[in-house]
Amino acid sequence: MKFKVIVTYKPGILDPQGKTIHHSIEMLGYKEVKDVRSGKYFELEIEGNDKAKAELIIKDISAKLLANPNIQTFKIETDK
Amino acid sequence: MKFKVIVTYKPGILDPQGKTIHHSIEMLGYKEVKDVRSGKYFELEIEGNDKAKAELIIKDISAKLLANPNIQTFKIETDK
Repeated sequence: MKFKVIVTYKPGILDPQGKTIHHSIEMLGYKEVKDVRSGKYFELEIEGNDKAKAELIIKDISAKLLANPNIQTFKIETDK
Repeated sequence: MKFKVIVTYKPGILDPQGKTIHHSIEMLGYKEVKDVRSGKYFELEIEGNDKAKAELIIKDISAKLLANPNIQTFKIETDK
Protein backbone atom coordinates (compact mmCIF):
# COMPACT_ATOMS: atom_id res chain seq x y z
CA MET A 1 0.00 0.00 0.00
CA LYS A 2 1.14 3.52 -0.75
CA PHE A 3 0.50 6.49 1.50
CA LYS A 4 1.24 10.17 1.05
CA VAL A 5 1.99 12.44 3.98
CA ILE A 6 1.89 16.21 3.63
CA VAL A 7 3.48 18.24 6.43
CA THR A 8 2.70 21.95 6.71
CA TYR A 9 3.26 24.67 9.26
CA LYS A 10 0.38 25.38 11.60
CA PRO A 11 -1.46 28.65 10.91
CA GLY A 12 0.39 31.54 12.53
CA ILE A 13 3.78 29.82 12.41
CA LEU A 14 6.34 31.78 10.41
CA ASP A 15 7.35 30.14 7.12
CA PRO A 16 10.66 31.72 6.01
CA GLN A 17 11.08 29.39 3.00
CA GLY A 18 7.62 30.33 1.74
CA LYS A 19 8.39 34.03 2.22
CA THR A 20 11.68 33.70 0.30
CA ILE A 21 9.97 31.90 -2.59
CA HIS A 22 7.21 34.52 -2.62
CA HIS A 23 9.87 37.21 -2.95
CA SER A 24 11.56 35.33 -5.82
CA ILE A 25 8.19 34.99 -7.57
CA GLU A 26 7.73 38.76 -7.38
CA MET A 27 11.22 39.16 -8.87
CA LEU A 28 10.05 36.93 -11.75
CA GLY A 29 7.35 39.53 -12.36
CA TYR A 30 4.25 37.71 -11.11
CA LYS A 31 2.35 40.17 -8.95
CA GLU A 32 -0.76 37.94 -8.95
CA VAL A 33 0.68 35.59 -6.33
CA LYS A 34 -0.66 36.62 -2.91
CA ASP A 35 0.77 33.97 -0.63
CA VAL A 36 3.16 31.03 -0.64
CA ARG A 37 3.34 28.38 2.06
CA SER A 38 5.97 25.67 1.99
CA GLY A 39 5.77 22.16 3.35
CA LYS A 40 7.15 18.67 3.06
CA TYR A 41 5.85 15.71 1.13
CA PHE A 42 6.51 12.00 1.67
CA GLU A 43 5.47 8.80 -0.08
CA LEU A 44 5.62 5.66 2.05
CA GLU A 45 5.18 2.14 0.83
CA ILE A 46 3.89 -0.33 3.39
CA GLU A 47 3.85 -4.11 3.13
CA GLY A 48 0.65 -6.07 3.75
CA ASN A 49 -3.08 -5.60 3.25
CA ASP A 50 -4.24 -4.38 6.66
CA LYS A 51 -5.10 -0.79 5.83
CA ALA A 52 -6.22 0.15 9.35
CA LYS A 53 -2.95 -1.13 10.81
CA ALA A 54 -0.92 0.61 8.11
CA GLU A 55 -2.69 3.90 8.85
CA LEU A 56 -1.82 3.61 12.53
CA ILE A 57 1.84 3.04 11.60
CA ILE A 58 1.83 6.04 9.24
CA LYS A 59 0.23 8.24 11.91
CA ASP A 60 2.87 7.25 14.47
CA ILE A 61 5.72 7.82 11.98
CA SER A 62 4.28 11.19 10.95
CA ALA A 63 3.95 12.42 14.52
CA LYS A 64 7.37 11.11 15.60
CA LEU A 65 9.59 11.61 12.56
CA LEU A 66 8.04 13.53 9.69
CA ALA A 67 6.42 16.45 11.49
CA ASN A 68 7.24 18.52 14.53
CA PRO A 69 3.87 18.53 16.34
CA ASN A 70 4.68 21.81 18.10
CA ILE A 71 4.73 23.83 14.91
CA GLN A 72 3.56 21.53 12.13
CA THR A 73 0.48 19.57 11.19
CA PHE A 74 0.27 16.56 8.87
CA LYS A 75 -2.29 15.05 6.53
CA ILE A 76 -2.28 11.43 5.38
CA GLU A 77 -3.65 10.42 1.99
CA THR A 78 -4.09 6.90 0.69
CA ASP A 79 -2.80 6.24 -2.80
CA LYS A 80 -4.81 3.65 -4.79
CA MET B 1 -7.54 30.65 -6.17
CA LYS B 2 -5.41 28.16 -4.29
CA PHE B 3 -3.02 25.74 -5.96
CA LYS B 4 -0.89 22.98 -4.54
CA VAL B 5 2.43 21.99 -6.08
CA ILE B 6 4.12 18.71 -5.20
CA VAL B 7 7.77 18.35 -6.20
CA THR B 8 9.34 14.88 -6.20
CA TYR B 9 12.56 13.36 -7.47
CA LYS B 10 12.38 11.68 -10.87
CA PRO B 11 12.53 7.88 -10.75
CA GLY B 12 16.12 6.71 -10.54
CA ILE B 13 17.34 9.88 -8.80
CA LEU B 14 18.87 9.19 -5.40
CA ASP B 15 16.82 10.51 -2.46
CA PRO B 16 19.15 10.69 0.57
CA GLN B 17 16.54 12.33 2.84
CA GLY B 18 14.07 9.53 2.06
CA LYS B 19 16.74 6.91 2.78
CA THR B 20 17.61 8.56 6.11
CA ILE B 21 13.96 8.67 7.17
CA HIS B 22 13.50 5.05 6.11
CA HIS B 23 16.43 4.11 8.34
CA SER B 24 14.94 6.06 11.28
CA ILE B 25 11.61 4.29 10.73
CA GLU B 26 13.38 0.93 10.99
CA MET B 27 15.00 2.14 14.23
CA LEU B 28 11.45 2.90 15.50
CA GLY B 29 10.72 -0.80 14.94
CA TYR B 30 8.48 -0.64 11.86
CA LYS B 31 9.75 -3.32 9.49
CA GLU B 32 6.59 -3.07 7.34
CA VAL B 33 7.77 0.11 5.62
CA LYS B 34 9.35 -0.86 2.31
CA ASP B 35 10.20 2.50 0.77
CA VAL B 36 10.21 6.21 1.61
CA ARG B 37 10.47 9.00 -0.94
CA SER B 38 10.72 12.62 0.11
CA GLY B 39 9.54 15.69 -1.74
CA LYS B 40 8.46 19.29 -1.34
CA TYR B 41 5.01 20.74 -1.03
CA PHE B 42 3.81 24.28 -1.75
CA GLU B 43 0.51 26.11 -1.49
CA LEU B 44 0.18 29.19 -3.67
CA GLU B 45 -2.63 31.70 -3.56
CA ILE B 46 -3.30 33.54 -6.79
CA GLU B 47 -5.44 36.63 -7.27
CA GLY B 48 -8.17 36.72 -9.90
CA ASN B 49 -10.61 34.30 -11.52
CA ASP B 50 -8.82 33.30 -14.72
CA LYS B 51 -7.97 29.70 -13.91
CA ALA B 52 -6.22 28.97 -17.21
CA LYS B 53 -3.94 31.99 -16.78
CA ALA B 54 -3.26 31.09 -13.14
CA GLU B 55 -2.28 27.57 -14.16
CA LEU B 56 0.22 28.93 -16.69
CA ILE B 57 1.75 31.12 -13.98
CA ILE B 58 1.97 28.19 -11.55
CA LYS B 59 3.59 26.00 -14.21
CA ASP B 60 6.20 28.65 -14.96
CA ILE B 61 6.94 29.23 -11.25
CA SER B 62 7.18 25.47 -10.63
CA ALA B 63 9.62 24.90 -13.50
CA LYS B 64 11.76 27.95 -12.67
CA LEU B 65 11.73 28.15 -8.87
CA LEU B 66 10.10 25.23 -7.09
CA ALA B 67 11.58 22.25 -8.95
CA ASN B 68 14.91 21.50 -10.58
CA PRO B 69 13.73 20.07 -13.93
CA ASN B 70 16.95 18.05 -14.32
CA ILE B 71 16.25 15.81 -11.37
CA GLN B 72 12.72 16.64 -10.19
CA THR B 73 9.20 16.52 -11.49
CA PHE B 74 6.20 18.52 -10.28
CA LYS B 75 2.46 18.04 -10.09
CA ILE B 76 -0.06 20.87 -9.80
CA GLU B 77 -3.38 20.40 -7.99
CA THR B 78 -6.21 22.89 -7.80
CA ASP B 79 -7.67 23.47 -4.37
CA LYS B 80 -11.44 24.18 -4.33
